[in-house]
Amino acid sequence: MTINIDKQQPIKISTKKLAQDFLDKYDTFLFDCDGVLWSGSILLPKVKETLKLLAKLNKQLIFVTNNSTKSRKNYTKKFASFGIDVTEDQIIGSSYATATYIHNVLKMPTVGTKIWIVGESGIEEELKQYGYETIGGSDEKLLEEWNPSTTPFLPLDPNVKCVVVGLDTKINYHKLCIAFQYLTTVRDNKETLFIATNNDSTFPSHNMILPGVGSIVESLVTSTGRNPIICGKPYTPMLDALFEAKPNLVKERCCMVGDRLNTDIKFGIDGKLGGTLLVLTGIETEQNLLSENTDASELPKYYANKLGDLYELIEPLLQ
Amino acid sequence: MTINIDKQQPIKISTKKLAQDFLDKYDTFLFDCDGVLWSGSILLPKVKETLKLLAKLNKQLIFVTNNSTKSRKNYTKKFASFGIDVTEDQIIGSSYATATYIHNVLKMPTVGTKIWIVGESGIEEELKQYGYETIGGSDEKLLEEWNPSTTPFLPLDPNVKCVVVGLDTKINYHKLCIAFQYLTTVRDNKETLFIATNNDSTFPSHNMILPGVGSIVESLVTSTGRNPIICGKPYTPMLDALFEAKPNLVKERCCMVGDRLNTDIKFGIDGKLGGTLLVLTGIETEQNLLSENTDASELPKYYANKLGDLYELIEPLLQ
Repeated sequence: MTINIDKQQPIKISTKKLAQDFLDKYDTFLFDCDGVLWSGSILLPKVKETLKLLAKLNKQLIFVTNNSTKSRKNYTKKFASFGIDVTEDQIIGSSYATATYIHNVLKMPTVGTKIWIVGESGIEEELKQYGYETIGGSDEKLLEEWNPSTTPFLPLDPNVKCVVVGLDTKINYHKLCIAFQYLTTVRDNKETLFIATNNDSTFPSHNMILPGVGSIVESLVTSTGRNPIICGKPYTPMLDALFEAKPNLVKERCCMVGDRLNTDIKFGIDGKLGGTLLVLTGIETEQNLLSENTDASELPKYYANKLGDLYELIEPLLQ
Repeated sequence: MTINIDKQQPIKISTKKLAQDFLDKYDTFLFDCDGVLWSGSILLPKVKETLKLLAKLNKQLIFVTNNSTKSRKNYTKKFASFGIDVTEDQIIGSSYATATYIHNVLKMPTVGTKIWIVGESGIEEELKQYGYETIGGSDEKLLEEWNPSTTPFLPLDPNVKCVVVGLDTKINYHKLCIAFQYLTTVRDNKETLFIATNNDSTFPSHNMILPGVGSIVESLVTSTGRNPIICGKPYTPMLDALFEAKPNLVKERCCMVGDRLNTDIKFGIDGKLGGTLLVLTGIETEQNLLSENTDASELPKYYANKLGDLYELIEPLLQ
């Protein structure tokens, strides 16, 4: 293993003392979910105990996910299925961040505005919560084969001002063609806005890796020659939504916990949070983390083999 | 209009003398089809007369198309529908170029090798002509919704050594997922080959512009992190297939005729053909051609408002 001594090396949380010092530094922990809390449908070891321990220590717990297929409400059910009690306001998903960004930052009016969706119900629900009318998305008529003469989505709806692209595991040419038409149409000298919930290139599902939102977004980037605003980690709209939802957060007392350097850890660093913790239960390995090729701008302050190590190291102190 | 005087300006064929000089320089004319001969389903003015004139002058005519959905055989029918007689051996399509490249350049064995297709029947037919077994492609079972538990295409077929991506106007998540699995699978330390018929980002159809092969290819490039070999214009496998099919061609006596600078004209220049002619009946405008932003490596020797100008300028000489 090559260790680069020029960079500030991450601290491995491997003793009770290090774990205690780490916990004392932060009031709020922001968690990525897949690869940190669970892997697909399997809860990772001692996660439930660690979350309980943090709650007992009066830490605020927030869950930050790029998954755009579920609304926050639906996401609480996923937690419940693992026996973890989480309320809707503890969850910041990329669909929620996208809807918040469109409403609060872009200040797009809800009256007379429609949003064309490439994606599933999560993003539709979050936009509806703000009062937007969505079209496309989960509409079953889009599952018909593309035929320009029979599609009910032509001619284009002149009220569509924005195209939002999230993960859609029923993506097809019909959906790509209509999104393409909206994105290449100029009305009143204005292009239709192009927004992506996130641009993760892949995602894990059913013990497989599958093409992610990023692969759908890049397809439209190539055909239209346009680049979208990207909302999810590691981009700033996600952070804006987070601090808007939680105005009491003190950045220096927040720690981002994740399994990916280029999304989770970068998100924590770019967001100027007090700390970052990488866990090795997801996509990264210790060798990769400590190699000289790792971008210094994506290096966490701390790392641990798994999130559950915090419980296993600390627990004797509490008993 | 800003004219850049540092570059060798293309000559506009606008007089009888210029047209005659142009025709005298070349024995063989290579034509792009859409935007040159026809636009969608409409034959452009005086195209038939120009092709007849060239035949009368004993010029060799070859049609070079990136369209991968049709085999050469099917393409002759398209010509016939416009009343133009063309034989199969006058057509070099990106599907034919791809199949020729796989067979003659990569020398992939036909026995024990299967090729996974993302695309339509054109590429399947051309590969079958060389004796390859294709799977995927136009198989109707791929039109079912993606479901990893029920897809008949998992587990992967160990004989698949290559994935070929062409235009597929029935592209869906099921097709992307299986192609992704093949492209990210390593067998005997070998990755599955990744080949694209071409990478045109869009194509014209039914008076609309629609997402092209390039947008499907880029989706897979993003999810897999891999880059394909691209066969169609302006890349060299297309040229290799052309000179393989026509060993008697003399490059200096060939002229490429097309409507796109970055595919057709670049193809002629990179291929070191004697000449290039841009016609303004497709994607490019005179303003764009003569602007200082146009890449000097994509500038044609000649240009004309339309291909039919050759007939209209020359015709009095023959009568």
